[in-house]
This record gives sequence, structure tokens and C-alpha cells, in this order.
Amino acid sequence: MDDVKKIAILGSTGSIGQQALEVIRALPDKFSVMGLAGGKNPELLKRQISEFQPKVVYSLVKSDFDCEGEFLSMEEIASHSEVDVVIMATSGKVGLHSILAALEAGKIVALANKESLVMAGEIIINEARRHQAQILPIDSEHSAIWQCLQGEESKPRRLFLTASGGPFYHHSQSQLSKVTVEQALNHPTWKMGKKVTIDSATLMNKGLEVIEAHWLFAIPFENIEILIHPQSIIHSMVEFVDGSIKAQLSLPDMKLPIQYALSYPQRWPNSKLPFLDLSKTQPLNFEPVDYDKFPCLKLAVNAGKAGGTYPAVLCAADEVAVELFLNNQITFTDIPRIVQKTLEQHDNIPQPSLEEILAADDWAREYAGGSSFYHCEHPTVIARNEVTKQPPRLRNLEERDNK
Amino acid sequence: MDDVKKIAILGSTGSIGQQALEVIRALPDKFSVMGLAGGKNPELLKRQISEFQPKVVYSLVKSDFDCEGEFLSMEEIASHSEVDVVIMATSGKVGLHSILAALEAGKIVALANKESLVMAGEIIINEARRHQAQILPIDSEHSAIWQCLQGEESKPRRLFLTASGGPFYHHSQSQLSKVTVEQALNHPTWKMGKKVTIDSATLMNKGLEVIEAHWLFAIPFENIEILIHPQSIIHSMVEFVDGSIKAQLSLPDMKLPIQYALSYPQRWPNSKLPFLDLSKTQPLNFEPVDYDKFPCLKLAVNAGKAGGTYPAVLCAADEVAVELFLNNQITFTDIPRIVQKTLEQHDNIPQPSLEEILAADDWAREYAGGSSFYHCEHPTVIARNEVTKQPPRLRNLEERDNK
Repeated sequence: MDDVKKIAILGSTGSIGQQALEVIRALPDKFSVMGLAGGKNPELLKRQISEFQPKVVYSLVKSDFDCEGEFLSMEEIASHSEVDVVIMATSGKVGLHSILAALEAGKIVALANKESLVMAGEIIINEARRHQAQILPIDSEHSAIWQCLQGEESKPRRLFLTASGGPFYHHSQSQLSKVTVEQALNHPTWKMGKKVTIDSATLMNKGLEVIEAHWLFAIPFENIEILIHPQSIIHSMVEFVDGSIKAQLSLPDMKLPIQYALSYPQRWPNSKLPFLDLSKTQPLNFEPVDYDKFPCLKLAVNAGKAGGTYPAVLCAADEVAVELFLNNQITFTDIPRIVQKTLEQHDNIPQPSLEEILAADDWAREYAGGSSFYHCEHPTVIARNEVTKQPPRLRNLEERDNK
Repeated sequence: MDDVKKIAILGSTGSIGQQALEVIRALPDKFSVMGLAGGKNPELLKRQISEFQPKVVYSLVKSDFDCEGEFLSMEEIASHSEVDVVIMATSGKVGLHSILAALEAGKIVALANKESLVMAGEIIINEARRHQAQILPIDSEHSAIWQCLQGEESKPRRLFLTASGGPFYHHSQSQLSKVTVEQALNHPTWKMGKKVTIDSATLMNKGLEVIEAHWLFAIPFENIEILIHPQSIIHSMVEFVDGSIKAQLSLPDMKLPIQYALSYPQRWPNSKLPFLDLSKTQPLNFEPVDYDKFPCLKLAVNAGKAGGTYPAVLCAADEVAVELFLNNQITFTDIPRIVQKTLEQHDNIPQPSLEEILAADDWAREYAGGSSFYHCEHPTVIARNEVTKQPPRLRNLEERDNK
């Protein structure tokens, strides 16, 4: 019984949360679900509670829960004495305080939430170090890198983050500006939540992953490269100083990185996890990424390099812009314009406190959401004119060498 | 100074031996060459001795060596008190006693010689275990697997040995029978010695590697698969029980696996080692191997599964047959015929002693070399008739399920 890992899932009704419960359901001897926290889908949360009978529960939306568990805050669940592993599967900044609470309580944090590390990487990593708490990545790319680093004593030379390129990698600029919400939600290789699917299509997602990798693996931005790999079979790679590269391969299925974070340092068989037949896959190819075509990627990497409150502003502006796009209020190519304009207008704070980060996030949401970008009858036209009329250079933001 | 590894190279004038010395030459602070043993190229051995000034030396061919080192037997060099790591780079069975001497003395054995493990895998592995001596693979495929296994606590599910397929993978049977020595020596991706280059063209080499992998990693034959991968970029892969696959990639250059065996568990930068630019490589593809087209592969895997003295007979018959082919005495497709006939005529000894293995080797050399296969005016025609006239089934040899 001591081998049973006691799990809390924050964000259990989202895409990652549901897949985490699939893994747990398939391996009932390995886990017990201690806590569940759900967002905007109380009906699903009810069903999850009824199936897994968690001891502690949080629901964003009040409803009539038939539940024997105790209702607590997300922070209380994350730091609960009976929890071993906290799966952070909330999206956006919602989980930030819970992650810090979990780390302070010395929990293992299995991290699917990108934004927290992007916004507050230094604070989170320092908090983990201080309390000797482990942060284990669930993102497929970071899980791949982490798997490749197992047992290696020498620091890697470079990380290669692979990117499918999303559905529009070979689109022209004019095609990109006409992309519909439906097209952008149709990712070629991965099934994910809406926000991350749009971020994958703009390549913002890959930029956030670069920042995440920087913090998780303590690697300088200069040593993190992106390779377009349309087949999504190699999930990322590590190059060592002797020229050897290790890669992690599997069919694109988030259940594998979720399970690895839970089974680590072991690996467990699970009939729900598919095996890859390499003799039946398409040839695997790689091409350098085009930073100019996907400005979100460049904005993200530059924000990561500049540090301070820029990454928080990037995240917040992107979240607002993606929401506007999903609501058909702006075009696909307006997303980077809004993010860029917001970054340009931001007064960066180096080495910010958590409060300063959250204040920057608030400011960016207001600026990106309240600006003249789209509050008009023909939002996309106005938006484009507004941003392109006077293209101001990024203030304080190092221009990325595009070579 | 304690960090300097004291190296002995047995087979220093061969292809692997020379490349090992290139690695050592590039990293003078890391190594001192304690011992060198050379075969049929005394002039090169002289130059190596003059450059590296080894303390102990062996030469198969007597010559006027201007050398301050002491002349010893290969076994004495392999077990010399001042040697830390023995690089076994001899070909064939020559190194067998030296490996056992090195293991008995508790040395680290960096093993490039396939035949020793194929002939006497159980004896060698038991000897290593008994003396807590390490065997570190130098073969690129086994080095790849070993690198992928670092830090993994769970046993792998399958090993995927990759094979370029050699120069003739898409040849028809009739084209194969007309292959010249020159064509067979022209390997598409690797530069190697003559014997191993021919073995790569017949895929015998891959069969020997399967047996080697079986012993090195304690993996059942059923869990070792071969994938044709013409680009020779992924050098092998490991699949784990959760469906995750790890691969090791690099440009085809033996200096990397040689250096990794010497730097392990660390990795060292070396300006002589190339970095791979994946955005410039051909797409990586994989296909299942055709056992019927390359009978040497099937013979090798079956001999490995059957065990006993069969693998020694396989090695010996193959060595004789390759030599006959290199001397233009038989055709390319006669090689598997001679090996098969010799295996068929052999009375297997299960769990053999070293003496029984060496006796089987002697018998097989005599049989393969002295049979009616080729001692005639038109050897290839006779050979083909001889073998195909009465196709006897393999005795005691499990037929491989070809599915």
C-alpha cells in the first residue's frame, strides 16, 4: 500500500486532467486520487468525484456536488498533508499560487501548466530548490528532454525542441491572415485544449516552451533550438558535448508524458498507451524554424531573454488575443500584433516579485483587451492599420539574431 | 594526474585501433597509452610506438622495433597492473583469451570485437560478473543502446538495432550473385575494415550484433528487432514498457562510441568529433528487414538462439567464406551457402567450455575452407550446385519465424 501514489489534480476537467485520470484509471494499483480541482465544467467534475471519491475537492463553479470530500481552496489541496504528487493541469496563471504552495510543502509537482514557469520561472525554481521539491515536466517536449537527460552527468550542449509547425506552417502571409477559427483548431498531430491549439498554430506555444525549458533545465536561451518536425514522432532531443544526440520518440499521446511523470524513476506498462511501429511511420524530417513567418515565436523568445515582467505580459496579452480570435473579433495575424504592441507599451521590471508579476499580468490584460485594437465595427481592419501605421521598435527588448 | 585513464589497445593498427588513437591524440590530458598490440602491420605499429611510447607492447609480426617498452603477450598486456581500460579492437577470435584475462584482472573492457561475445558470450559475461569487471560496448549500435539505457531503472521492452542495409539492400537475387569484391567493399555510410564491410553487405554483421546485444544487455532474442535505416543517423533505439522509445543519433563516425566508452559516465568535448545538423540530413526512414533476402542474418540469429557451439561455428565459417570472397574464389551469394552448410554439418555442444568453443571454431574453419565448395576450376558454379542440390534442413537449429 505504501507504493500507492496519492495524487491531486488541479484542473481535472481540462484536457490534461482528463487524460491524467485515464492513466490513473488504467493503473488502479498504482494510484489513489486524493484531490480534484475543476474549473468551468462542474458536470464533468461531479462525474469524476463520483468515480474517484477524492478526499478534498475544489470547484470554481458552485453546484450541487454529491461528495463526501471536503471542499478546500486549490492552495490547500496542493499542500495537503496526504498528497504526494500534485498534477498542475490548470491553464494560465490560475495555478501560480497553488504551485508555490505545493513546492513549499515539498510535494512533487507534475507540471503541465506552461504559463506559471513562463511568468515566474525564477521564483518557482528557487522555491523548489529551497524546499527540495521536485518539478517534473508533463509537456511532451520537456518530458522528452527530461527522459533523454536521465543518467547523464555532463551538461547538455544544446536542446532541440521539435515543433510540428502546426496546421499553417507552409501558408503564405496572406493565407495566414485569412485563417478561420475552425482551421486553427484543427491541429495536424495533437489533440489538445483550444488555447494551446491556437498557440500551436501561431507557434507561441513553442516560444513558451523555450522559456519553460530554460527554467526547467537551466539552459541558456542561446542553446535551445527549435526544429520543425511535421510528424510529431520525435518529441525533442538533447545534444551532448561529444556530438551525441538522444531523442525520445512515441506516438503523439499526452498519456505517456503524464504517466512518466507519475511512474518516474520507473516505467510501467499500460495497455492504454500505444506502441510506435517505426516501419509504418512517415519518414522523419526536420527543418529550421522560420522566425519571421511566426512572429509570436520571436516575441516569446525575446521576452524570455529580456526577462523581468516581459514574459508575464507576453502570456497575458496572448491569452487575451487568442480569446479575441476564438470569438472572431480579430484575425489570426492580429494575435502577434496585439502581443507585440502590448510588450512595446510595457515598462519592464527586472527581477520582479510575485506581486509585480501579477500586476504586470493585470496591466497587460487590460491593455491588450481594452486598446483600440478591436473595439470597433470592423475589428480586423482597424487592428491591422493601428499596428502597422507606426511600427515602433521593441523597447528594452533585445532583438533576436535571426540567423 | 589521477584522472588520466591508462589505456591498452589490442589491435591498435586496425581501423578501430587507429580511431581510438585519434581520440586519445585529441585529448592528451585525459589518457596515457600504456600498451599497444598490433597485428599484420608492423610499420604502422612502429609509428604508433614512437608517438605514444607505450610501456608494454605486443607485435604479431617480428620486426626491428625501436622501443623502450617491454614486449609481452596480449594476455599480459590486457591484465597489466598499470592498465585501467583495455580497448579490445582485434578482429575474430584472436582477442578471446585477452578479454578473459582483462576481466579476471578486473579491468574495464571497451569492446569493439564482436566475435568474442558471439562465440563465448555466456563465459565472458559470467567472468565479468565474477570479477565485477565492466564491459563497455564500442560498436555504434550497442553504444547507442547503452547510452539510451543510462539512468533507466526498468528493463527495456525491445531493442531496435538499426542497419543501413549495406550497399545491396535493394538488389535482386540475381544481382546479388554478381556482386564484385570492389562493390561489396564500398559501404554507403560507414568506413570500416574489410571483413566487417563484407559482413555489413551480407547483413551477417547485423546478425552478430543481435547476438552481441543479447549478451551485453541480457535481452531475449525475441525482443531484439532490426530496422533498416539507410541514413545511418539513428544508431539504435530502446523501447520501454510504457511505449517510450529513446534513440541515439550522430553522424556515422566510430570515434564517438570509442570516446564514449572511454569518457563514461561523463562526456567530453573533442574538436575531432562532428556535430549533426538535422535540418540538413535526409529524412530518416525505417523499414522491416527482409530475412529471406539476406540469409546470413537469419543464420546468425538462429545460431544465437540455438546457442552452444553454433555461434562459434557461424563466426568461423563466415570468416573463411568472406576471405574466399575477398580472394575472388566464391561469389557473394556463396557466403551464406558455405555458412549454412557448415552449420548443418556441425554437432552442437550445449553449454560448451572455452576449449570446446575453440575446437568447434577449428572444426568449422577446416570444414568451410576444405570442403568441395570452391576447390575447383569454377568454384562459384560448383558451390551453388553443391548447396542447392540437396537443401537439407538445419539440424537442431530453430527455424526463425519470419513474420
